[in-house]
Amino acid sequence: MMTDIAILGFGVVGSGIAKVIERSVLPVRRMTSDTINVKYILDKRDFPDSPYGDRVVKDLTVILSDGDVKIVCEAMGGVHPAYEFTMACFAAGKSVVTSNKELVATCGVELMNAAKKHHVHYLFEASVGGGIPEIRSMRTSLAMDTVLKIDGIMNGTTNYILTRMKSEGLSFEDALAEAKALGYAEADPTADVDGYDAQRKIIILSAVTTDRLAAAEQVYTETMTKVSTLDMDAASRWGGTVKLIGSFRNLGDKMALFVCPRFVPFADPISHIDDVYNGIKLTLEMTSDVMYYGRGAGSYPTASAMVSDIVSIMTGAVKAELHMKWHRADDDFVVPFETLDFCYYVRTSSHSSHDAIESAKNVIGDVRELSGSPKGCAEFITGRVTESKMREYLASGALGSVESVIRILD
Amino acid sequence: MMTDIAILGFGVVGSGIAKVIERSVLPVRRMTSDTINVKYILDKRDFPDSPYGDRVVKDLTVILSDGDVKIVCEAMGGVHPAYEFTMACFAAGKSVVTSNKELVATCGVELMNAAKKHHVHYLFEASVGGGIPEIRSMRTSLAMDTVLKIDGIMNGTTNYILTRMKSEGLSFEDALAEAKALGYAEADPTADVDGYDAQRKIIILSAVTTDRLAAAEQVYTETMTKVSTLDMDAASRWGGTVKLIGSFRNLGDKMALFVCPRFVPFADPISHIDDVYNGIKLTLEMTSDVMYYGRGAGSYPTASAMVSDIVSIMTGAVKAELHMKWHRADDDFVVPFETLDFCYYVRTSSHSSHDAIESAKNVIGDVRELSGSPKGCAEFITGRVTESKMREYLASGALGSVESVIRILD
Repeated sequence: MMTDIAILGFGVVGSGIAKVIERSVLPVRRMTSDTINVKYILDKRDFPDSPYGDRVVKDLTVILSDGDVKIVCEAMGGVHPAYEFTMACFAAGKSVVTSNKELVATCGVELMNAAKKHHVHYLFEASVGGGIPEIRSMRTSLAMDTVLKIDGIMNGTTNYILTRMKSEGLSFEDALAEAKALGYAEADPTADVDGYDAQRKIIILSAVTTDRLAAAEQVYTETMTKVSTLDMDAASRWGGTVKLIGSFRNLGDKMALFVCPRFVPFADPISHIDDVYNGIKLTLEMTSDVMYYGRGAGSYPTASAMVSDIVSIMTGAVKAELHMKWHRADDDFVVPFETLDFCYYVRTSSHSSHDAIESAKNVIGDVRELSGSPKGCAEFITGRVTESKMREYLASGALGSVESVIRILD
Repeated sequence: MMTDIAILGFGVVGSGIAKVIERSVLPVRRMTSDTINVKYILDKRDFPDSPYGDRVVKDLTVILSDGDVKIVCEAMGGVHPAYEFTMACFAAGKSVVTSNKELVATCGVELMNAAKKHHVHYLFEASVGGGIPEIRSMRTSLAMDTVLKIDGIMNGTTNYILTRMKSEGLSFEDALAEAKALGYAEADPTADVDGYDAQRKIIILSAVTTDRLAAAEQVYTETMTKVSTLDMDAASRWGGTVKLIGSFRNLGDKMALFVCPRFVPFADPISHIDDVYNGIKLTLEMTSDVMYYGRGAGSYPTASAMVSDIVSIMTGAVKAELHMKWHRADDDFVVPFETLDFCYYVRTSSHSSHDAIESAKNVIGDVRELSGSPKGCAEFITGRVTESKMREYLASGALGSVESVIRILD
């Protein structure tokens, strides 16, 4: 037997799929009594030097009209034309597996509905955490439990930058330059450093657990470009480090989603996820904490997750999973970020640290000084304060000249 | 609809299963359109105060002869009579889910074959890593990849002890006493501290990946009771900590299995798995490193994993997984521990640290002094040495009076 597939986009991930398929022939045969055959590759470019060069087609209709192709791997990235291509595949009776987090986070509702209508599957294990198999776990092993919260390092580029800032004392700019030189950061790193990549991933994970797909505007998203070596040093004195964390909170019949830099205590295993690795921690009602760690990107890890999705369609395992019926998360379902509360790290520039701490106590009440501050600075950790209150305090000027505010993970 | 089940053994785990079933009614109904009903509980004791008191039976034949019971949860522990009871359930056409690592590690081959013969399932997610869903992941998401190695903290009791030795400078004895007081260690902690619990778990995980079940005698297993605060302090100066690690190595057409205390560098996320938590790291050919972290024991986490096994039988997901055909690992398949090589930490008592290091260099060759040794000690880290060679060196007396030897994780 042989299952014909097509790959859309023959870049880093697409060519990885072909390689992983080559290298997994034996286990795939053991699992499925079948072999995966890459019949077509859709790409604008030609690949004369690739052993797959002769399978490149320029026109999607070649793939759509070939009834032997049952599964399509979308590794194009971006919303358009990936959306139209995926919809066309569904309409032609083909299941699609994808690594495209932007597409799933943006159009997941429409895509999931269309897949259902056409009795095909849409799987996206590779869209979050690269090779980390957290989505299938959430949909099978952990699905009888209730996810209370998710906190994760979901972007390898920014985690590399923050790791280098911590270990080498590099500035954000220098660490970013290093990440670019190593190919970990793109020429335009906005989507990574401003948190949009992590935002897409927490949108997807929260949809897996709630069936509600949030819009980007519903996720408070803060850049990590303002994190400084002073912040890193303060976190270290406090007993932790700074990480860019994507968070989901289950608030009963509502949810909260946010992406921002956080102080993470060393007691939390997330604080030790370094370099380009991702770590996704779920807190469940009965199972308690479960964390997944692995490579969040890269050709082979990402492609492996896509091949595991192909295999689950071939074995029929996907049929035993609950069919996802995603809806748009309406504004009532997503609580405004301003209503959440956090403990905060705050640094102010001040000639008298004592005076600065005293005024903070007058304003906020529960304030604990962080010792060892650099000259000319006062630093403190607050008790729990509502985000809206904190913004009032900051806007009022009552805390003095504030240099940095970072929320603490709990 | 309703699926009747029976629970064998109503202790910590067994009563947890009943609770988890109560609390997961809605998600289970969503996943299966069905409800799990605890029809019988087999226990020698009576539970007059439990809401399940009226379901307690004393005789397995009541369960065996009730054709409505399709799934049995074995939470008795121990090999006998759990083995006979499980076999009887299979013969009566009932699938069994278990948390019994000792039984799976000891009789997994016979049990798996019997389950197959009777067209029923035998699932054991809860037997390794409690609530951590690593076994289903290995059998689904990661099954098309090749596991090159597994290293894990698989025993919460010993990890608690080692964590307290590190963080508080406690001796092994004091940390063990504390673990007993907190209920983390049993009155007779032998199975935990001498590594037998971790041994069973690495036997199970290696069988999941190779289909070969090793015997206890094929796993080099070293106690962690000899780890001292001096070792802990040395590991810290070296840049890591001491953990009890269960290891599997894929050596092509052979494997190696061993459980022993290891120096684990801080750069490895396993070094930061603390307290009673477990961490299991797989290194895969294509997916690279994946680590699972979570509660390796406890009533609800363990019971949750068992309920997830029940659900996977109910949804039919298990049918899509490859049926495990386990064989006994013959002695050719398991390489002798003596043939493996490691880097070692060695501490000798010596009046002259310089002399001790020089003799070590003469004997071993590649030796690096570890600085900061306590008075009267010399400490060094070796390059890679075959275990058999190292034993020769130690037996020859050429390294002087050796106080401690700990292998380094790599």
